[in-house]
Amino acid sequence: MHALIVFCHPEPRSFNGALKEVAVETLQRQGYRVEVSDLYAEGFDPLERPGHYVERVEPETFFPLTEQRHAYEGGTLPVDVKREIERLERADLVILQFPLWWHAQPAMLKGWFDRVFVYGGLYSGRMRYDRGRFPGKRAMLSVTTGAPAPTFSRHGRSGHIVALLWPIHYSLYYLGVSVLPPQVTYGVQGGGLSYQDEAAFRERLEAEKAAWARRLEGLDGEAAIPFAGWDDWNEQGVLKTEHPRAWQP
Amino acid sequence: MHALIVFCHPEPRSFNGALKEVAVETLQRQGYRVEVSDLYAEGFDPLERPGHYVERVEPETFFPLTEQRHAYEGGTLPVDVKREIERLERADLVILQFPLWWHAQPAMLKGWFDRVFVYGGLYSGRMRYDRGRFPGKRAMLSVTTGAPAPTFSRHGRSGHIVALLWPIHYSLYYLGVSVLPPQVTYGVQGGGLSYQDEAAFRERLEAEKAAWARRLEGLDGEAAIPFAGWDDWNEQGVLKTEHPRAWQP
Repeated sequence: MHALIVFCHPEPRSFNGALKEVAVETLQRQGYRVEVSDLYAEGFDPLERPGHYVERVEPETFFPLTEQRHAYEGGTLPVDVKREIERLERADLVILQFPLWWHAQPAMLKGWFDRVFVYGGLYSGRMRYDRGRFPGKRAMLSVTTGAPAPTFSRHGRSGHIVALLWPIHYSLYYLGVSVLPPQVTYGVQGGGLSYQDEAAFRERLEAEKAAWARRLEGLDGEAAIPFAGWDDWNEQGVLKTEHPRAWQP
Repeated sequence: MHALIVFCHPEPRSFNGALKEVAVETLQRQGYRVEVSDLYAEGFDPLERPGHYVERVEPETFFPLTEQRHAYEGGTLPVDVKREIERLERADLVILQFPLWWHAQPAMLKGWFDRVFVYGGLYSGRMRYDRGRFPGKRAMLSVTTGAPAPTFSRHGRSGHIVALLWPIHYSLYYLGVSVLPPQVTYGVQGGGLSYQDEAAFRERLEAEKAAWARRLEGLDGEAAIPFAGWDDWNEQGVLKTEHPRAWQP
């Protein structure tokens, strides 16, 4: 079994960095071959733009999806995008490790979605959702937040964590991947716990590392988040009332 | 009155570029002084990282919020961040013009949130939500989507547009800004309408430009999206049951 950990934090000695290390060690102990996409360390370019495409279909005007498909089909995708796609293809399990910044993934990781999930290659009008490119793969977010857990509850001040992560989960499902419930580590900064308070930081870190390792050890038995699929939608792309099994915010 | 248009698209000759131009012209006609942050054209750096901070509080380990506050207080913020904050400070109205990529704003615009909304300057534990830094300012998203409108309805295949935009709206509200309902232009790519179909593109574009101009002309009378505020939350940061006025996904 192969695992890919996409790690997005500018500081390796961060809480996120520690959780990434735990995942590497725990999965290796379970027999996984583990690869890490360390986006900051590898200098991943998060910006989709004309400069990435050498042979343009439309040299005058930049249509991102047109150029993505053309580059995929012609084998001229940018080197970093090719590498990330190969990593995805090898992976049975994909873990995204990142801090929640402004109610979403940091720009670096958002750019990984924008550039790597290539139109005409990783998805198309016909190849998406439960008919997506990667059936059988599993993915999972491991997220840290600054604010404490109660503020992320259904009517919490920080926003419902299920709603905040839904756009990211749904983007993974768009590729046909099964998405496991996220590992959310709350209140890493703020809420009385500061990185600078070394003792509290260490204690909390060790507890969260242990919890994360335990979770990873039992991952095989976990059920994926249910999403609607093609059989559930009518020709307008709206849920048929007789198939109300899937929830969205 | 000042308006700031934050424009995020790699191609000026795009649908987004055309809508941006309409906003500039329409607002100027109404007497606004209009500034444009053209993130791609200006080469904005979307990545929060140690290299932006010359005088570090913690030279060993990079804690983004710690360095943001320190740089704000010491006047050593990066030049581009300073410029964007000054533009925000001047603006009575802020419009974000962008395409929806992977259920969110493109990485470039996400990075504008990550870097410009500086801790200790634009917000703090005490200065946020309805006690935020920018009361009286109004903000609004103008978003294009690839998929057609019905798929973004409450039970639509693309996800409920209200839920998808909520994290971005809430991030603006976090700064104390009043957020107007978004201008969403659906089905710009896909759904039978292709950029490359020149006649259909032109016709649709002209219709959408006119609709956008009409909307902008009547903006003064529009009511903002309601959000909960400090009086609505208990000490855990959860909505008090007696104040259920605010909705979140």
